[in-house]
Amino acid sequence: MATTEVPDIVIGRLPIYLRALTLMDEAGQEFTSSQELGQKLGIGSAQIRKDLSHFGEFGKQGTGYEIKYLREQISKILHVDRDWSVALVGFGDLGQAIANYAGFANEGFHIQAIFENDSTKIGQKVNDQVVVEDITGLSERITQQKIKIAIVAVPAPVAQEVADKLVDAGVKAILSYAPITLSIPDTVRVQYIDPVTHMQRMTYYLD
Amino acid sequence: MATTEVPDIVIGRLPIYLRALTLMDEAGQEFTSSQELGQKLGIGSAQIRKDLSHFGEFGKQGTGYEIKYLREQISKILHVDRDWSVALVGFGDLGQAIANYAGFANEGFHIQAIFENDSTKIGQKVNDQVVVEDITGLSERITQQKIKIAIVAVPAPVAQEVADKLVDAGVKAILSYAPITLSIPDTVRVQYIDPVTHMQRMTYYLD
Repeated sequence: MATTEVPDIVIGRLPIYLRALTLMDEAGQEFTSSQELGQKLGIGSAQIRKDLSHFGEFGKQGTGYEIKYLREQISKILHVDRDWSVALVGFGDLGQAIANYAGFANEGFHIQAIFENDSTKIGQKVNDQVVVEDITGLSERITQQKIKIAIVAVPAPVAQEVADKLVDAGVKAILSYAPITLSIPDTVRVQYIDPVTHMQRMTYYLD
Repeated sequence: MATTEVPDIVIGRLPIYLRALTLMDEAGQEFTSSQELGQKLGIGSAQIRKDLSHFGEFGKQGTGYEIKYLREQISKILHVDRDWSVALVGFGDLGQAIANYAGFANEGFHIQAIFENDSTKIGQKVNDQVVVEDITGLSERITQQKIKIAIVAVPAPVAQEVADKLVDAGVKAILSYAPITLSIPDTVRVQYIDPVTHMQRMTYYLD
């Protein structure tokens, strides 16, 4: 159903739609419209209809979208109708917050391996489940567990080296919190979380 | 120099350029080109030249861009050639990681006030400087200190209420880590950090 021809910017909006639909569904709402979604998200209703039309016909004249159904469909399109194993590299303040963030597991992203080079942290048990491992065992563990997604929460100077190791071990998607642009082959997806760039995008509009 | 007519998507790329220039500058590099920048960032060189042309003529035929100068100019355009006071709301795992994140202060964003409703955390001193305050004093403190930027690191169910209070107190830019879309007047900028949506954008491309 989904083809590689859908622009990445459209793919980038689907998780936003999914989040809104999930909240509506959990609040007990049954139907919505592109107008209502658009208002909630600050996106034009025509844009929303066009984005969804890449994947099929989800709305009905008069009744709009059935929330549960659309939520399921977008989950399938995004491949989040299943559980994903995730590796976390770096267990400093940020890594610890990430490991404890319930939002990942709630959405099917399970941190199954954690790596660190600080010997005082290696061996620590997280959430009664995952033991922090020595980063030297990263490649072996990730290959063995066939983990495809990794979160990089290490300092900028070592981020590229960590990313290289992840790619070599077969990781296909990297979420990086390190404030540098990684050099990554085209076959691997990368997304960045850098709060400073978000801040700087806003200060432009402040006096 | 900067006008409001520059598309927001262009503004969104300036912090990415600035980050790359800062790294090059710190590494001692003196000149760069739109080609080199483009390769590092995965953005077309024509796009970079077009983006920068909104604000003036920064490059020279033959030598390209002088890194220090371009870095200074983009800093001015984004209003990050100065220090900004920031309020942080929420001092759970995430809030603590944010408060301890050196990246903000390094770029001139100083967390000057921290608010929490958990009485066991109120009164705690962070980085030997800022004392965690009761959230009931939020409006008064923010108005008093004329803080214009706030970071929201509270659970989703209370995020809208917190955002409303921040807006009422005069905050003009909100960086929200809560996984909901906030309802905010047009006069206030908002940026979201939701790692789950970044993850979901990548799983689309995974089998």
